[in-house]
Amino acid sequence: MGLVDDLINGDRKAAAKLITIIENDTNKAREIIPLIYPCTGNAHVIGVTGPPGAGKSALIEKLTGELRRKDKTVGIIAVDPTSPFTGGALLGDRIRMQELSMDKGVFIRSMGTRGNLGGLARATNDVIRILDAFGRDVIIIETVGAGQADVDIMHAVHTSVIVMVPGMGDDIQAIKAGILEIGDIFVVNKADKNGVDRTVMELEMMLDISDRFTKGESTVGARPKMDKGWRPPVIKTIATSGVGVPDLQGKIEEHMEYMRRTNILQMQEKKRIENELMAIIRNRMTEHTMERIKDGEYDELVQKVVTHELDSYSAADEILRSCH
Amino acid sequence: MGLVDDLINGDRKAAAKLITIIENDTNKAREIIPLIYPCTGNAHVIGVTGPPGAGKSALIEKLTGELRRKDKTVGIIAVDPTSPFTGGALLGDRIRMQELSMDKGVFIRSMGTRGNLGGLARATNDVIRILDAFGRDVIIIETVGAGQADVDIMHAVHTSVIVMVPGMGDDIQAIKAGILEIGDIFVVNKADKNGVDRTVMELEMMLDISDRFTKGESTVGARPKMDKGWRPPVIKTIATSGVGVPDLQGKIEEHMEYMRRTNILQMQEKKRIENELMAIIRNRMTEHTMERIKDGEYDELVQKVVTHELDSYSAADEILRSCH
Repeated sequence: MGLVDDLINGDRKAAAKLITIIENDTNKAREIIPLIYPCTGNAHVIGVTGPPGAGKSALIEKLTGELRRKDKTVGIIAVDPTSPFTGGALLGDRIRMQELSMDKGVFIRSMGTRGNLGGLARATNDVIRILDAFGRDVIIIETVGAGQADVDIMHAVHTSVIVMVPGMGDDIQAIKAGILEIGDIFVVNKADKNGVDRTVMELEMMLDISDRFTKGESTVGARPKMDKGWRPPVIKTIATSGVGVPDLQGKIEEHMEYMRRTNILQMQEKKRIENELMAIIRNRMTEHTMERIKDGEYDELVQKVVTHELDSYSAADEILRSCH
Repeated sequence: MGLVDDLINGDRKAAAKLITIIENDTNKAREIIPLIYPCTGNAHVIGVTGPPGAGKSALIEKLTGELRRKDKTVGIIAVDPTSPFTGGALLGDRIRMQELSMDKGVFIRSMGTRGNLGGLARATNDVIRILDAFGRDVIIIETVGAGQADVDIMHAVHTSVIVMVPGMGDDIQAIKAGILEIGDIFVVNKADKNGVDRTVMELEMMLDISDRFTKGESTVGARPKMDKGWRPPVIKTIATSGVGVPDLQGKIEEHMEYMRRTNILQMQEKKRIENELMAIIRNRMTEHTMERIKDGEYDELVQKVVTHELDSYSAADEILRSCH
């Protein structure tokens, strides 16, 4: 595949094409990733998440400017796991970001779901690899909302940045319950708005409490967490004017240094790979089984469960039996 | 198993014991569910979800009272997919609900996650089956928050009720993006608070828009949605005093009648069973594979991926090859 050579030599079009290929047919990843994998492992992957309207895109724009001033190349993957509803808003952000894409040192790509959240996390992983092999120093993943897809994607990054806004009130509880455990750095954006200090204080408090609760092994997936000596900082920013962004960039770098210094980076990488392996194996075996099932037989079994002649566990047994 | 006979004869202790058995060891479900499955399929399963503090527990309490006045027996499963953070609040709610449990016609049970969201949805499914075989007319599942686990659980119910509160502001967008597609009935609780009409109006508007966007097949899992003639109603309630609860109960019944009248109930049941079958098969095959892998070999392959000697796809190939 000439495309892969072009990619590794830094050809933008090759990068775009390979991403499209993988997006359209996840099976192609099986052919492409093995070829590029030896050239990966150099990028610092940063995840940025938070509720819609928190100003993530503006923040990423300014952060990218900061990284470019330090001569780092940047890849941005904007992931939208929420179906048609937020389409409009995101599109606006994308257009605003296109100013950045005039710069050869910045590569921007959007990704949608097509209804399969699990698949999105996997495809995002593959796109990270492509941008890594493409030679990007920093890869920023932007995701919307606080769903499971975000959590899955956040497991694939080295440094996760959670963006909040002042005055989220009661709902901060709902958002933070799941997200506190996966945040390495917290940003309270729109720091010129009322209530910023209260939101910062609430966050600091919840982080203190969570420190107490998350002693020992983290229960949530791949990331060894706060108990290991990294207390997530809370940073105030005003993304539109850039206030606080150099501070954020500094903390992101500090976090990576911390991860390298302790061996958390390697532990995390290992856990991430184990999760990824399991996901690949699980998918491949399911495909394999479904291929081997005669359609008629499968439908017949489903029908029997619908009519309560058979339960799902016994039906699964029959399917598995007929495959081996 | 005498327990199963006792359950089917309406023995409370047998129900509680069987649930505990399945909670502690999901593999036991394989033995228990086949025995009770022929006696299931009679309950109306209702899901209630929404952000913490929306008053879901109080609403369920009053709804249960309403159902009891109509001589229906009720099972309540309170699912808490968010780890330690919300523990306190939920406990309070549970204690408040215990007044209900003095009534023999009400059976209440809480379930936690233990770190495995996918497993929780499956276990909830099994517990629904147990309460169904136990003879409950109505089974109410309460879940917290708006994560993927909630969405998965909501796919297992016949009628899903989404509880909101006035003045959720910008965040209503975040919550609704994922939840609009799975709600059959929307409740704006705390209707004595400021901003209730605005929240109702926003919801109605978003439902109108989503109607336009979701023509054709729903992209989200098991539930054939609004395009089929059911426009989710938005109901105002004050759970603490019971205002609006009879209206809610009426709409819930209306929804079930609608599902029965059209053949959506059966279509949904079929899709749900297909999803469940796939989940069971996937889990069983993964277990099967992991058992067959010699630990040393697996660790060695992971290590090779960590050091970039091998990529995940090729490692998965090797694992699968050595299993067949």
